[in-house]
Amino acid sequence: MAQTIKLAVIRGDGIGPEVVDEALKVLHAVLPADLVVEETAFSLGAARYLETGDILTDDDMAAVAEHDAILLGAVGGDPRDPRLAGGIIERGLLLKLRFAFDHYVNLRPTTVYSSVASPLADPGEVDFVVVREGTEGPYVGNGGAIRVGTPHEIATEVSINTAHGVERVVRYAFDLASRRPRKHLTLVHKSNVLVNAGALWQRTVAAVAEEHPDVTVDYQHVDAVTIHMVREPGRFDVIVTDNLFGDIITDLAGAISGGIGLAASGNINPDGTFPSMFEPVHGSAPDIAGQQVADPTAAVLSVALLLDHLGRADLAAAVTQAVEADLASRGTTPRSTAEVGDAIAAAAAARTTTA
Amino acid sequence: MAQTIKLAVIRGDGIGPEVVDEALKVLHAVLPADLVVEETAFSLGAARYLETGDILTDDDMAAVAEHDAILLGAVGGDPRDPRLAGGIIERGLLLKLRFAFDHYVNLRPTTVYSSVASPLADPGEVDFVVVREGTEGPYVGNGGAIRVGTPHEIATEVSINTAHGVERVVRYAFDLASRRPRKHLTLVHKSNVLVNAGALWQRTVAAVAEEHPDVTVDYQHVDAVTIHMVREPGRFDVIVTDNLFGDIITDLAGAISGGIGLAASGNINPDGTFPSMFEPVHGSAPDIAGQQVADPTAAVLSVALLLDHLGRADLAAAVTQAVEADLASRGTTPRSTAEVGDAIAAAAAARTTTA
Ligand SMILES: CC(C)[C@H](C(=O)O)[C@@H](O)C(=O)O
Ligand SMILES: CC(C)[C@H](C(=O)O)[C@@H](O)C(=O)O
Repeated sequence: MAQTIKLAVIRGDGIGPEVVDEALKVLHAVLPADLVVEETAFSLGAARYLETGDILTDDDMAAVAEHDAILLGAVGGDPRDPRLAGGIIERGLLLKLRFAFDHYVNLRPTTVYSSVASPLADPGEVDFVVVREGTEGPYVGNGGAIRVGTPHEIATEVSINTAHGVERVVRYAFDLASRRPRKHLTLVHKSNVLVNAGALWQRTVAAVAEEHPDVTVDYQHVDAVTIHMVREPGRFDVIVTDNLFGDIITDLAGAISGGIGLAASGNINPDGTFPSMFEPVHGSAPDIAGQQVADPTAAVLSVALLLDHLGRADLAAAVTQAVEADLASRGTTPRSTAEVGDAIAAAAAARTTTA
Repeated sequence: MAQTIKLAVIRGDGIGPEVVDEALKVLHAVLPADLVVEETAFSLGAARYLETGDILTDDDMAAVAEHDAILLGAVGGDPRDPRLAGGIIERGLLLKLRFAFDHYVNLRPTTVYSSVASPLADPGEVDFVVVREGTEGPYVGNGGAIRVGTPHEIATEVSINTAHGVERVVRYAFDLASRRPRKHLTLVHKSNVLVNAGALWQRTVAAVAEEHPDVTVDYQHVDAVTIHMVREPGRFDVIVTDNLFGDIITDLAGAISGGIGLAASGNINPDGTFPSMFEPVHGSAPDIAGQQVADPTAAVLSVALLLDHLGRADLAAAVTQAVEADLASRGTTPRSTAEVGDAIAAAAAARTTTA
């Protein structure tokens, strides 16, 4: 009997729709007869907000929650538009989904493809995954301000870290590390300054490490990790870190691997209580939207993460290999967003039918 | 009449003493007859703490405060020593000095020297300064934890940002930008998530910008700035940012410019109420301590920042140029820490006597 997956599709703003179209093209190209994907389109994002004043209503939430997974393009309008100031869309939509659906694992793999130019002179072999915590840290929205706009203003931001929240993501990271060939885990924090949160993370990693004698563990401060990432990125295997540090170092990871245009991510609720969400790490890039010049690869690779999450590692591999083949054959002639999608879809389809 | 500068010297731990010796060698090599430096050595750091249990006593503080400036090597012992866990030396010594002496400007220049190999394939011309706030943000030590060690532990870290604290460092950054040829300032924050602190920083920059129509201003999120720093570091001129973001991006800046072995910093109290402190960005590197293999260049360049701070831009330039000449002539034969210091001292002395 065929498995049916209900997929909520949030194409979003800017280049979001274009790259999602290609990601879906590739998804359908690899679907076998026994896997059916039913899509529901949700038109959410800055455009809808500016039109209706709604970002994500309770009804929207309930409808999205009915699905097995979410594919998201990118959200956010023109950053200079004062009506969109303060990350209102990012927080009201993206972060709201991550928090409401308890996406406590934000999975961000980084590979340096030999065929893609890296800004690093000699990146070497790079293949690591950042397991970024997704529901705590300074992202909880627990801050405030008094005497705003006066010389006596005080603004605070509170990072909240719980044993519950840290342990579950650390466990996920160890499980992942123990399934990878190198079985290495690096905790990234700033424990010499953020001593309370740092101690919780360090104690948790030490405790879970006891259950994983096969995994080697080290620790790096978040400042120092940026040095190693540009000097010797090949040393990393699995990195586990908090929400903010993960945000920062995964952009850096995307950059060294030849561009944020290739960086995919999964916002995972490993318990399966809520739909997990897959999205490129890049933003909506309104300046190049609608021109068919955006690279859909990160969105396509997000589909690979989705397939992997659905237990179809075989299909995920077909997509990833098709992307690798496409990257290797990229010439200097620019292709449209759709042309890149067509090429990857064809290559991925060939891999699944011959398999 | 000669100007006399009372310099507190904290050689510290690990490679600290070795690199400070060379920095002082260079300092003395460029001193003209009208500038006298009186040094007081303070033996502070992990070694002293492990011996006496004292990190920085009130008497130490009072004695250091009597000086016009501080030169610090590096502090911190073996990171695996449990007696030194939780950054006890870093916080009790380094951060305590920065906070007590109101070092609200943490100045960290980055230059890519054409003669130094950068991990970037094509860094281009890079010459920017990060103005990192030094007395606020998540560094204030305002966090806590309850139910520690239980499954219900909650650990918090509070970032505190005040109009007073933000405005003074933003003013400093604008003043600096308006004195530089490119007159460009970039605010780095994460205003789409840390909305309270972010709004204070953005409003402050917008307000001070009004007084500096000559300075162009832009804003970047801290995650995105890491991308630009590896892809196009030449675009930056002056970056102003908070304590934690500044910590992270200046390590990255050090790495792309060919190594943290060249990165100097000044912890400045612009009001002159307290002594400013100059230190290499690198740590104490206990693994290579005492072997005369450490590169003293970052410490030497910290002396250049010290001289500049004392109003002796001429002497600072002599040191910087001597470093540049030394970098350009570095062969493949390794030199000892002292040999590097000797070479730079000689070159710097030649520059001051012929001037
Ligand atoms: C848009 C923003 C809120 C988001 C984040 O900070 O998590 C983005 O940078 C990301 O990494 O997905
Ligand atoms: C040692 C540590 C407390 C310090 C900091 O975080 O400021 C260091 O990383 C630095 O950048 O000077």
